[in-house]
Amino acid sequence: MTRCERHGLVVGVRPEKREEYLALHAAVWPQVEATIVAANITNYTIFVHGDLLIAYYEYVGSDHASDLAKIGEDPVTRRWWELTDPCQVPVPGALPGQIWADAQEIWHLDGKK
Amino acid sequence: MTRCERHGLVVGVRPEKREEYLALHAAVWPQVEATIVAANITNYTIFVHGDLLIAYYEYVGSDHASDLAKIGEDPVTRRWWELTDPCQVPVPGALPGQIWADAQEIWHLDGKK
Repeated sequence: MTRCERHGLVVGVRPEKREEYLALHAAVWPQVEATIVAANITNYTIFVHGDLLIAYYEYVGSDHASDLAKIGEDPVTRRWWELTDPCQVPVPGALPGQIWADAQEIWHLDGKK
Repeated sequence: MTRCERHGLVVGVRPEKREEYLALHAAVWPQVEATIVAANITNYTIFVHGDLLIAYYEYVGSDHASDLAKIGEDPVTRRWWELTDPCQVPVPGALPGQIWADAQEIWHLDGKK
C-alpha cells in the first residue's frame, strides 16, 4: 500500500446540469488531468448517485494545500471550472467559497493488494 | 495500478446516532474487517461530512455479488450490522432494502503510484 493521504469529497449536481456534467467528465481535457497528476494526486475517481457527486483521491506529495493552489493557477483548469462550477451546488456544511466539501476519514482498511 | 473495480457508496447517518456510528468505526471488530478482506475488498475507506457518509473501496476478486453475499453470511458481521444499521438512513434513490447506495463511476484518473 502506497503511503498517502486519502481524501473524500462531496458536492451536489444541479439536476438540470447533470447530463452536462456527466458529458464533460466523459472527456476531461488532457491539460486538466495533467495538472492534477502534477499536483501529486493519484487514484482519483468521481462517482454520481442521483444529484450527488462523491469523489475519492489519494495525495502522495508533501504539501496538499500548496499543490491544490497550483492547480488553481493553471489557466486551462480555470477555464474548465468555468464549465463545471455552474453544474454544482455545495452540500450543507460546505465552507464558504468551497464547492466540493471535504469529508473526514473515519475508518480505513487496507486489505489485499 | 492494481486492476480493480472501484466502488463508491453513499448513505445518510441519523444525526442522533452520528457519534455512536463514529465511535463504532474507531474500533471496528477484527472479524468484521477480516471478513471484508476475505471478500476481496481492499483500500476501503469511510468518510463523514455532516450527516452524510461516503465510502470507497476496490474490489479485486472475480465475482463481486458472490463475495458480498459471503460477507452477509458471516454471523459476526450480521451482529455488527445490528449496531450500524439503526445509525443509517438511505439516501433518496437507494434501492429497496439497500442501506448504502451504489454510486456510478463517471471519471477516473490513475496518476502517479
